[in-house]
Amino acid sequence: MTRQPVIFVTNDDGLHAPGLKKLIEIMRSLGKVVVVAPDKPQSGTAHSITINVPLRLKTHVKEPGYEEYSCNGTPVDCVKLGFRVVLKGRPDMLVSGINHGSNASINIIYSGTMAGVFEGAMAGVPSIGFSLLNYSHDADLEPYSNYVKRIAENVLNRGLPPGVGLNVNIPDARSAIRGIRICKQAGGSWQEDFDERVDPGGRTYYWLKGIFVKIDDAQDSDEYALEHNFISIVPVQFDFTAPQAIPILKSWPLND
Amino acid sequence: MTRQPVIFVTNDDGLHAPGLKKLIEIMRSLGKVVVVAPDKPQSGTAHSITINVPLRLKTHVKEPGYEEYSCNGTPVDCVKLGFRVVLKGRPDMLVSGINHGSNASINIIYSGTMAGVFEGAMAGVPSIGFSLLNYSHDADLEPYSNYVKRIAENVLNRGLPPGVGLNVNIPDARSAIRGIRICKQAGGSWQEDFDERVDPGGRTYYWLKGIFVKIDDAQDSDEYALEHNFISIVPVQFDFTAPQAIPILKSWPLND
Repeated sequence: MTRQPVIFVTNDDGLHAPGLKKLIEIMRSLGKVVVVAPDKPQSGTAHSITINVPLRLKTHVKEPGYEEYSCNGTPVDCVKLGFRVVLKGRPDMLVSGINHGSNASINIIYSGTMAGVFEGAMAGVPSIGFSLLNYSHDADLEPYSNYVKRIAENVLNRGLPPGVGLNVNIPDARSAIRGIRICKQAGGSWQEDFDERVDPGGRTYYWLKGIFVKIDDAQDSDEYALEHNFISIVPVQFDFTAPQAIPILKSWPLND
Repeated sequence: MTRQPVIFVTNDDGLHAPGLKKLIEIMRSLGKVVVVAPDKPQSGTAHSITINVPLRLKTHVKEPGYEEYSCNGTPVDCVKLGFRVVLKGRPDMLVSGINHGSNASINIIYSGTMAGVFEGAMAGVPSIGFSLLNYSHDADLEPYSNYVKRIAENVLNRGLPPGVGLNVNIPDARSAIRGIRICKQAGGSWQEDFDERVDPGGRTYYWLKGIFVKIDDAQDSDEYALEHNFISIVPVQFDFTAPQAIPILKSWPLND
């Protein structure tokens, strides 16, 4: 495109996360950038929307080619407010991240990063979520900049099918990364446990903890690619229908 | 089954919602019931998990055949705590609702009711979400009890494919209901708007509002069934992969 594309940036780790700063830096080399990010960490908020408290938008930077805002809501709120109130229209592309931690396999369902991507895709905007498989905010993101830029350039140039977004996960393998693979979401589950404690007043409380259990050995899955030091891209959409179950249910005597 | 099945009940409107009370009443006619519901409304929390504040569990009723607890977290927290801490295992079935309002089409992505269902299905438990297309907590639920019971009985007797749950939506058509249809999730989107206001301190704030726009005329969709006074059942799963986009992305020069 001849005019500069408008790129919308959000995340779920909040405005001050290093992953967001790096993503902004990369996107500013590709076009005009408008950032609307949560004013505090919103990990695990999934596709939450804020309906019981009013939303507020704070302007941090507003200069030609770059605008930066924070919002007191979730990533989905940031996208809705950003498109409707800030841009008053749609950007050419939405990017979310770089998340500090994996959103591969079923982690996607809890992810605020990917909720922002779904919200963008639902609004008809080509949208990409980037996640690094390292939870530390001190992780070195520089070795992955070129991959992030290349994927974003491809999306800017080629677009995406309507309603489809990309879930990009990056193994923290630095120079050992072997390339990029197009994958499907791996089957998996979280094996939950709770850390049970007693507060000074004698009342019991619980902290959620758990370990991810892969239940899928398919070689075309995102988990397989990541284990083998490939960056995984899963094209995602928000249709939850399980088509294989429809004929089974149709055979039930529900209307007798 | 000869022994009484254990049925786990949750919702997102909170422990005091009439829809939950009705669902409990129906399920108690089918087996032993364990309720873990949020202690306050959690609509719009989607698949959120609580990781920044500790979770607490309050026992309200504990008698043979019936137990009732509340939790200060989201529906997903209720399911995780309920299975791990209360049941110390898996129930025979999970039901969520009856939600006061539609979870058809893309409403499912914001839904706490259906997040509980996904969480159950991911844990290998046959799980059903029930929603009535009436937002009023005063809506008369009695005309729909037999349908809810019949669907639950079918699931108890027949099970569901691994990882699949049911999204059941009920039109508020009372005696005009024409039956039950197995459907796919309708395409649709929310056209957002924000109600912009100024607080007494002169600061701007926003309330999210919006209208649902159906973008799908398929006669096998849930929205179509509901418009024609059928109860819709969509079998759902948590695989976000968009398989039709994989060959497109594979043709991109991402590794060149």
